[in-house]
Amino acid sequence: MGADGILELGDLELELGGVIPAARLAYRTHGTLAPRRDNAILFAHMYSGTPASLDHWIAGGRALDPTRWFIICPGQLGNGESSSPSTTAGRFPELTIGDDVTAQHRLVAERLGIERLALVLGFSMGAQQAYEWAVRFPERVRRVAVFAGLARTTPANDLLVAAAAEALAAGGTKQHAHFWAATALSAELFRREAWRDAGYQSVADLVTRLFEEDFAGRDPADLLAQLAKWRRADVARHTDGDLAAALDRITARVAITAFSHDNVFPVADCRAEQELIAGSSLRVVQSVWGHYAWGMTEAATTQIEQIVADLLPT
Amino acid sequence: MGADGILELGDLELELGGVIPAARLAYRTHGTLAPRRDNAILFAHMYSGTPASLDHWIAGGRALDPTRWFIICPGQLGNGESSSPSTTAGRFPELTIGDDVTAQHRLVAERLGIERLALVLGFSMGAQQAYEWAVRFPERVRRVAVFAGLARTTPANDLLVAAAAEALAAGGTKQHAHFWAATALSAELFRREAWRDAGYQSVADLVTRLFEEDFAGRDPADLLAQLAKWRRADVARHTDGDLAAALDRITARVAITAFSHDNVFPVADCRAEQELIAGSSLRVVQSVWGHYAWGMTEAATTQIEQIVADLLPT
Repeated sequence: MGADGILELGDLELELGGVIPAARLAYRTHGTLAPRRDNAILFAHMYSGTPASLDHWIAGGRALDPTRWFIICPGQLGNGESSSPSTTAGRFPELTIGDDVTAQHRLVAERLGIERLALVLGFSMGAQQAYEWAVRFPERVRRVAVFAGLARTTPANDLLVAAAAEALAAGGTKQHAHFWAATALSAELFRREAWRDAGYQSVADLVTRLFEEDFAGRDPADLLAQLAKWRRADVARHTDGDLAAALDRITARVAITAFSHDNVFPVADCRAEQELIAGSSLRVVQSVWGHYAWGMTEAATTQIEQIVADLLPT
Repeated sequence: MGADGILELGDLELELGGVIPAARLAYRTHGTLAPRRDNAILFAHMYSGTPASLDHWIAGGRALDPTRWFIICPGQLGNGESSSPSTTAGRFPELTIGDDVTAQHRLVAERLGIERLALVLGFSMGAQQAYEWAVRFPERVRRVAVFAGLARTTPANDLLVAAAAEALAAGGTKQHAHFWAATALSAELFRREAWRDAGYQSVADLVTRLFEEDFAGRDPADLLAQLAKWRRADVARHTDGDLAAALDRITARVAITAFSHDNVFPVADCRAEQELIAGSSLRVVQSVWGHYAWGMTEAATTQIEQIVADLLPT
């Protein structure tokens, strides 16, 4: 499903001073851009994902209905499809979320001629990109829906992601999978053995299928580039470190969603940013899946879709 | 302070079938055993600690007053002072918490001639040992005070400790320090920058002094032996896996304390065990230090000491 494309970016100058030679932005679109170009949605993907990771959210009759919306799913830099360590000769330069968004802006504004996006949404690292869009290009973004992610990486989140990167660098994707299995779910999930409801036979089965197998096919250098980018996420780069001032640039209507048992992006951290965004809302999706509440259960999926549906015009 | 001793255990047969040749139990005692031998307290130390780690809890005028109590602080097997990988030639066998407690029992009952301990207490891995005492030797234990620890390692805790061990094995004590810095504190500690109150200048200073320097002097093989033992903690070994039946063997008066923001041993996991122990109590010490609430602030220290004082006769 969807149509895949590549935008050639030429030699891409990055926010931290590096250059990606002959850079490429891979993307997937769903649906058709309306003649007035007013039905475009940008859906940014999460860590270790690709545009294909988002396919299951997009279907006729659902909130992200491709018969109604033109949905652009850009591949983040470092994802193995867009320019990445695995696709680039030599030392790969340091990335920021801003680099993703400026590349995506070229796709949206220059290639596709879209003046304003009806919605930018994303989960986790996708949320970082959505916030960056709203702060960097406020006039381009009408609505934002962020799920379990922050505009600026907190010190606690930075320590966590740094430890994930150390696990990956020292122990490979399997150790890195074990790190996330130990930190991204919740104690409640295990106490209640709620993983059984998702079809896992045992904790070992959960760790193998949901974590080890998921990361096994990824290039470690690509994942490390993404983790380093995650740690650098900070919309306050635009305002000399003043987060409130950065978030005050947002003109979009912002719907923020946190996951109740998420230790990666705790509710209180999401709330602290929400309180700095005029007219924004915060909803909390209850789920013992922690950061993995994204799409893991029918109940969470229904709530997430309803939040998107409520934000969009009918 | 205190007096150090060594109990020679001979060739020590272990619960899982291994043998430690010419095994030794290192220990420290504080105070004097009363003629009636009824003033003995056993204080078991935590992961990566030694009996000296407990010195600061023991002083005249405090709950653990050595002018009133005879306080025995055994060194756990694998701690570098008692028999450990670092002190033993050849492959070191697999340990259980039961091995610690049977060795400690020989010290208490055979060497010191103590029939019944007035109190067994411990934090974290020390709590595992206290529970094991109460289940294995119920007639020997009058009172138990456990802090931020469990009688049986949960699946969530097992994943966490396994990931810590992988960090240590692949990346050494520094990566292992970073793992605990990322997982054993709380997001609230960082959100409020409450670490400033403890005298740290920055997050980097906190990570360096509280974690990196603390673990830097430890032998990785000793730490790995302790982590493996931690994972195996399970009083239900005595009752064919039936945790309720195991905890029902306890005759001691048990005071359980959990730390409010502890992601290593969450309150709900402590409560689940507390509900299985007749006549026990659960108190929650509020602290944003998470698992590190043990002794990190004056407020937590005062609460912990009060809990011990309330449990002991005057």
